[in-house]
Amino acid sequence: MQKISQPTLLLNREICQTNIREMARKAQKHNLQFRPHFKTHQSAEIGEWFRAEGVDKITVSSVDMAKYFADNGWKDITIAFPFNKLEIDEINKLAEKINLNLLLIHEESIRFLAKNIKHEVGIFIKIDCGYHRTGIPAENHEEINELCSELSIQSKLKFVGFLTHAGHSYHASSPKEILDIHSTTLSCMNSLKQEFSHLKPIISIGDTPCCSLAENFNGVDEIRPGNFVFYDVTQFKLSTCESKQIAVGLACPVVAVHEDRAVIYGGGVHLSKEFILDEAGNRNYGLAAKLNHHGWNAPIKGAQVISLSQEHGIVKLPPAELKKLRLGDLLVILPIHSCMTANLMGSYLEFDGTVIEHLSCACREVDR
Amino acid sequence: MQKISQPTLLLNREICQTNIREMARKAQKHNLQFRPHFKTHQSAEIGEWFRAEGVDKITVSSVDMAKYFADNGWKDITIAFPFNKLEIDEINKLAEKINLNLLLIHEESIRFLAKNIKHEVGIFIKIDCGYHRTGIPAENHEEINELCSELSIQSKLKFVGFLTHAGHSYHASSPKEILDIHSTTLSCMNSLKQEFSHLKPIISIGDTPCCSLAENFNGVDEIRPGNFVFYDVTQFKLSTCESKQIAVGLACPVVAVHEDRAVIYGGGVHLSKEFILDEAGNRNYGLAAKLNHHGWNAPIKGAQVISLSQEHGIVKLPPAELKKLRLGDLLVILPIHSCMTANLMGSYLEFDGTVIEHLSCACREVDR
Repeated sequence: MQKISQPTLLLNREICQTNIREMARKAQKHNLQFRPHFKTHQSAEIGEWFRAEGVDKITVSSVDMAKYFADNGWKDITIAFPFNKLEIDEINKLAEKINLNLLLIHEESIRFLAKNIKHEVGIFIKIDCGYHRTGIPAENHEEINELCSELSIQSKLKFVGFLTHAGHSYHASSPKEILDIHSTTLSCMNSLKQEFSHLKPIISIGDTPCCSLAENFNGVDEIRPGNFVFYDVTQFKLSTCESKQIAVGLACPVVAVHEDRAVIYGGGVHLSKEFILDEAGNRNYGLAAKLNHHGWNAPIKGAQVISLSQEHGIVKLPPAELKKLRLGDLLVILPIHSCMTANLMGSYLEFDGTVIEHLSCACREVDR
Repeated sequence: MQKISQPTLLLNREICQTNIREMARKAQKHNLQFRPHFKTHQSAEIGEWFRAEGVDKITVSSVDMAKYFADNGWKDITIAFPFNKLEIDEINKLAEKINLNLLLIHEESIRFLAKNIKHEVGIFIKIDCGYHRTGIPAENHEEINELCSELSIQSKLKFVGFLTHAGHSYHASSPKEILDIHSTTLSCMNSLKQEFSHLKPIISIGDTPCCSLAENFNGVDEIRPGNFVFYDVTQFKLSTCESKQIAVGLACPVVAVHEDRAVIYGGGVHLSKEFILDEAGNRNYGLAAKLNHHGWNAPIKGAQVISLSQEHGIVKLPPAELKKLRLGDLLVILPIHSCMTANLMGSYLEFDGTVIEHLSCACREVDR
């Protein structure tokens, strides 16, 4: 392993590839199209690990990500973010090169696209099954019907199906609650599938908690989970993964050791300010683990990042662990939300010294 | 103004330069050395606006930032972050070129530096006056004395003074509470100044809330505020600035309008996941304002970013405002924590189209 002197995002390739393989197999077992969300890793190289498992269709959450992956050989991409008319020029460039699917909510967008799109694109209608972030409420068949009718007369806009994201599964308090949310999603989406059966809609769902836990995908055609590629402490606490399935950890130098806490070089600009609440209602910004020769050990019992400022992290550790800690040691912090941490860090380091690029700062390398 | 199609961090140069000028004048008025913290803007160009106000000494929070500003002509830099022994090589390179001040907490670090530092560096001892992030508790004169004695026999380690950061002022519930914290800081630091008067210590303090509100700097030699350069919604809610003093806003395309909320392209990867609680105990991830020809209006009354995911922002707006909103409009989101937003965005756009570089992704430009 090369010398680490600053916060560095470590990636365990073996864990990551196992996570990919297991989700690909699950999709296969349930006869589902696997269109993984690449917003978590945002890496051309990690994308290739998906390709090795037979994946050829992907999901992204921005036009920039779609461009990046199209440039890296991906030919079928869904931008799972509401269509942004201000990006029509970039969208037209993409639609010329690849099979592109867009997400629509408003009739106004159909009229705008009808006038401005130059190449055929696939259209998913975004459905809200209870997350209430965005989308047409699943029960509003009338509005959905209007959109479908409007779409049917547009030659370049090809209706593909209904897409939903049960993001409220992240706030569930138990695996049972996650499965209940999943069950509601299935019933909402199947009701649409039936009502609009003449249009042969694809039903696309895709949050990591539901896709990890569920074994019933009745009526679903496609899944789009993303976070499972790395998992993280949020998923571990939701019981949607085990801690040993977490594939990324931030190596952080210890810079101060106090009576009741250690201070690490690793703050909000590295981990992100995302937190969850622990059993006692205190903020948990990450779990701490020790490096070993091929990765990191299980999280240290009773250790937790309790606060973050821009570059500082404060880690609560049991007294016995604190005593053993030395200035210049590296602690591995398992992130609360791996998507956000990866986006901030801009690259990954494998244990054999390989640096893996992330879209957000692929160019940072140039600077080093 | 150039065409904006994606989340873009707007900078109002006039407001920013006024913020800089006012703090520089305040320092001058109180006969304080002004060593502003550059971690908020992290921009060589904005640095020049400080230089125009007579600033020639600065503070940063990482070795990388010190390198960047040293490369941009700054010759006197304090790294206000606990000394990280793993970065000794880079520190030596810097110490060769500029006047560098380091922050120490542990005797072990003095012994390490004594062996490994190749050029003279200034040493601040980090004092904890109640924030409890890091530093030696102010009342622990014995430990501080030991460090000072140890330093006195080291030829390359030149004791400069005592440095503290009252970061708990950010959690104050009123201006009075901020001033109470400031008052405690002054009494702690003055007690040290007296006790160690034979060493002629510089007393350095520096959080934006205290530096903005206080008019008593008795015994203080140096201030190091940083956030005031842009201010943000946190400062506005603390009453340490007015909303019209906020110098940055994230322009975000509106991508969906629902009955009770709008969805913007602008999420946690742009604003950061930092929030404050509003009066009703709900999360506030930013205030919303409307663009005008030379900047943005006052925040829309009753409008607030109520949740953020990776790329989505959900904005609650009063019904009348929501009705006026159109897909493709730009909303300006005033950030909760401008340091974090600037770090994520990686560059600033002025209203005349000038792009201003930020260290975190100076190289992103290459990619565009």
